[in-house]
Amino acid sequence: MLKILLKYKMRYIIILFISFTSFAQSDEKVIREIYSNSLTNGKSYEWLDYLSNQIGGRLSGSLNAERAVNWTKSEMELMGLDKVWLQPVMVPKWVRGAPEFAYIETAPGKTTKVNICALGGSIATPATGLKANLIEVKSFEELEKLGKDKIQGKIVFYNRPMDATLIDTFKAYGGCVNQRYEGAVHAIEYGAAGVIVRSMNLAIDDSPHTGSMTYGKIPVNDRIPSAAISTQHADLLSSMLKMDNDIQFYFKQNCKQMDDVLSHNVIGEITGSEYPDEYILVGGHLDSWDIGDGSHDDGAGCVQSMDVLRLLKVSGITPKRSIRVVLFMNEENGLRGGNKYAEEAFRKGENHIFALESDAGAFTPRGFYFDTDESNFAQIQSWKELFKPYLIHFFELGGSGADIGPLKTPYNVLSGLKPDSQRYFDHHHSENDTFESIHKRELELGAATMTALVYLIDKYGIINKVKL
Amino acid sequence: MLKILLKYKMRYIIILFISFTSFAQSDEKVIREIYSNSLTNGKSYEWLDYLSNQIGGRLSGSLNAERAVNWTKSEMELMGLDKVWLQPVMVPKWVRGAPEFAYIETAPGKTTKVNICALGGSIATPATGLKANLIEVKSFEELEKLGKDKIQGKIVFYNRPMDATLIDTFKAYGGCVNQRYEGAVHAIEYGAAGVIVRSMNLAIDDSPHTGSMTYGKIPVNDRIPSAAISTQHADLLSSMLKMDNDIQFYFKQNCKQMDDVLSHNVIGEITGSEYPDEYILVGGHLDSWDIGDGSHDDGAGCVQSMDVLRLLKVSGITPKRSIRVVLFMNEENGLRGGNKYAEEAFRKGENHIFALESDAGAFTPRGFYFDTDESNFAQIQSWKELFKPYLIHFFELGGSGADIGPLKTPYNVLSGLKPDSQRYFDHHHSENDTFESIHKRELELGAATMTALVYLIDKYGIINKVKL
Repeated sequence: MLKILLKYKMRYIIILFISFTSFAQSDEKVIREIYSNSLTNGKSYEWLDYLSNQIGGRLSGSLNAERAVNWTKSEMELMGLDKVWLQPVMVPKWVRGAPEFAYIETAPGKTTKVNICALGGSIATPATGLKANLIEVKSFEELEKLGKDKIQGKIVFYNRPMDATLIDTFKAYGGCVNQRYEGAVHAIEYGAAGVIVRSMNLAIDDSPHTGSMTYGKIPVNDRIPSAAISTQHADLLSSMLKMDNDIQFYFKQNCKQMDDVLSHNVIGEITGSEYPDEYILVGGHLDSWDIGDGSHDDGAGCVQSMDVLRLLKVSGITPKRSIRVVLFMNEENGLRGGNKYAEEAFRKGENHIFALESDAGAFTPRGFYFDTDESNFAQIQSWKELFKPYLIHFFELGGSGADIGPLKTPYNVLSGLKPDSQRYFDHHHSENDTFESIHKRELELGAATMTALVYLIDKYGIINKVKL
Repeated sequence: MLKILLKYKMRYIIILFISFTSFAQSDEKVIREIYSNSLTNGKSYEWLDYLSNQIGGRLSGSLNAERAVNWTKSEMELMGLDKVWLQPVMVPKWVRGAPEFAYIETAPGKTTKVNICALGGSIATPATGLKANLIEVKSFEELEKLGKDKIQGKIVFYNRPMDATLIDTFKAYGGCVNQRYEGAVHAIEYGAAGVIVRSMNLAIDDSPHTGSMTYGKIPVNDRIPSAAISTQHADLLSSMLKMDNDIQFYFKQNCKQMDDVLSHNVIGEITGSEYPDEYILVGGHLDSWDIGDGSHDDGAGCVQSMDVLRLLKVSGITPKRSIRVVLFMNEENGLRGGNKYAEEAFRKGENHIFALESDAGAFTPRGFYFDTDESNFAQIQSWKELFKPYLIHFFELGGSGADIGPLKTPYNVLSGLKPDSQRYFDHHHSENDTFESIHKRELELGAATMTALVYLIDKYGIINKVKL
């Protein structure tokens, strides 16, 4: 074992040495060219303007989602790629219906309107709405301690806020999102009538944030309606409950789960000049929630990914390996596109050596997360100096992206772009995820940073421990 | 010489060693506490809200500037500092007067209105305005080549844009700002009637950006009015000139330079418990331009600096050295406050071992620039790991801040906070520098980052090559 490790290490040291001696000569210049092209001649901002302002929110199964599929396909065709095609995939179709309505009632007729939105996948309330007392909890453990007696017939109000002391706001999100995703399943267990969840938002404002939720194996007839409430109104509700535990909450929502419908992943490819059977994938997800226009989540990732292939071309780079851009359908409420793409790739034996997803907003890029082994990670870290002029400093092991996750093998490298995260959850899944909040240069720097990494991976390949 | 260097190096290695062994034990914890306090219990955002929305733009010599002096002094008094005082300083007073007005005239009566603003320090146009042909240039060299014949009686239109390929937008600003600052002096040399300068802004938008300009030694009667034009209208004007070189430009501005007036730097101090005669300064400038409310430039730096002293207190840190917050008056058009403070400090023999200024916007902090020698820089770099959890990675030699510059000695350390720079010049010196563009967490992260560095400098001191 030690011998294998040593032998392996030697190989990797040699590769690192080769990288180091050769990159000094030209890589700096190529990467400079990529960044300059993105900042002076990028298409990502113009594309996102169209996707956000001419098409808008693109929930799976919606007309807008299909318009986005057709438009991005036609834009890819204009780019002069070697291949452009649609990959069929059946997706869930959930519709919000007429706008939600909710209020807090302190005494008969004495009401305060609050802002809510149905969680994706939730059932509707009865046509006349749902009115009940509330029980506020911060965790499932608390719910368990309270027990059926205190919960039965009430609306469970999950109010654990995102932890403001965490620097990476995605970690704060990760610490809260189970309330939204599994909240109904737990509440149903104790006989609750409905669920209201504090929006996943670090800012205190008026906008409710939607997102997917599950009913797990709960039978259709036992399901309860679930909605998110704005952080400001969550605070209001909590303080009112402290004064009077007996207040009532009313909400009405009109959402509906329909039958699955046909949709598509949109795929474009530059076929590799030397190793066409080695695939490098770059992508984002084309679907979004319906409330905003999905500029950050994840229109940005789509247009950046498209621009990676265009920037390679305009920077005069002829990829040795096949570079694919994939705009995945249905990340938000099903991951059907990501699963379908990986299923087909494995079925065809396509060797995806590297996949990069941008799905964390259009803010100033800071670096990447990697899902890979130590040898590949070491090779990537040997490139850090090349990124320093662009203030790209974050190279850490961790996740990659939801859509590309199903492509993981023990041998390949997955990665996720890591932009600055401070503002992301102000917008995420809410009416505030709009084009006005996109900064042109930040978006373009993201596209350039992705292109630079794709260029290096294409040039140097990855370290395969096993011949495929 | 070599011996001295070696001896010196040894000393510094020992210091580094001491730092390394001790910081592992408690500094991580203290810095964690500082960041958590800033993010959950910071005052910077609330203070900036007041300064921006209740007071507003604070041009030197204005009533607002005096209101800001009095209000920040009273806030410092509420903080329970050991000393709070005002330092008198005479400042220039320039007033904009009634709003500017400008248009392009392609034929008699055929005009297109454009957005301009007078540059700070400029004279007014005649009361009826100034109308003349234009000559567009990108540089002073171009002006020289054209010569008096082609410039005499015309308005010089400086239209060299900021270089979008530079990642640090402050470098792009540095490559353009001589057009604004010295443009009039050069234009007068060739008999120009006025100056119009493209706004220092990477975005293409409607807002003109003001900023200081000089007449150098040009006699009062030979001066010409100077204004900035929005980037969008600069592009429009340039394309119209390409079609017809004979179009005319009209502008009217009503600004005026008054006599100097009395104003103040605002100073607060926590007196050091062990080395009260060693001063650590943290500051920003309280004056701003008059068009926006000065939130980024430099309300942010002021409230962050105030919060440094408060965060030290609430984090349970008793400084060994004296920590001063200084809100400087008149950075924008005179630097009188910075010069006065240094003059007094040197006169009193106050040993300022370290000064840190925040004057580059309220965006996510990335690190610091340092103006110091290699030994101090090495000590500071030995602290980099402590900042890594907060994504603070940028520690480079370079400038510090305009206001603290006059405090430089061969022995001390000056520093400037380095926030993300992508959005800064969208706001800088324009009506877009407002509180709405401030992100609470980004501002608070800046305050915490400054506090952490002040804490380390206070704990470990600096490496003085010469006993003072």
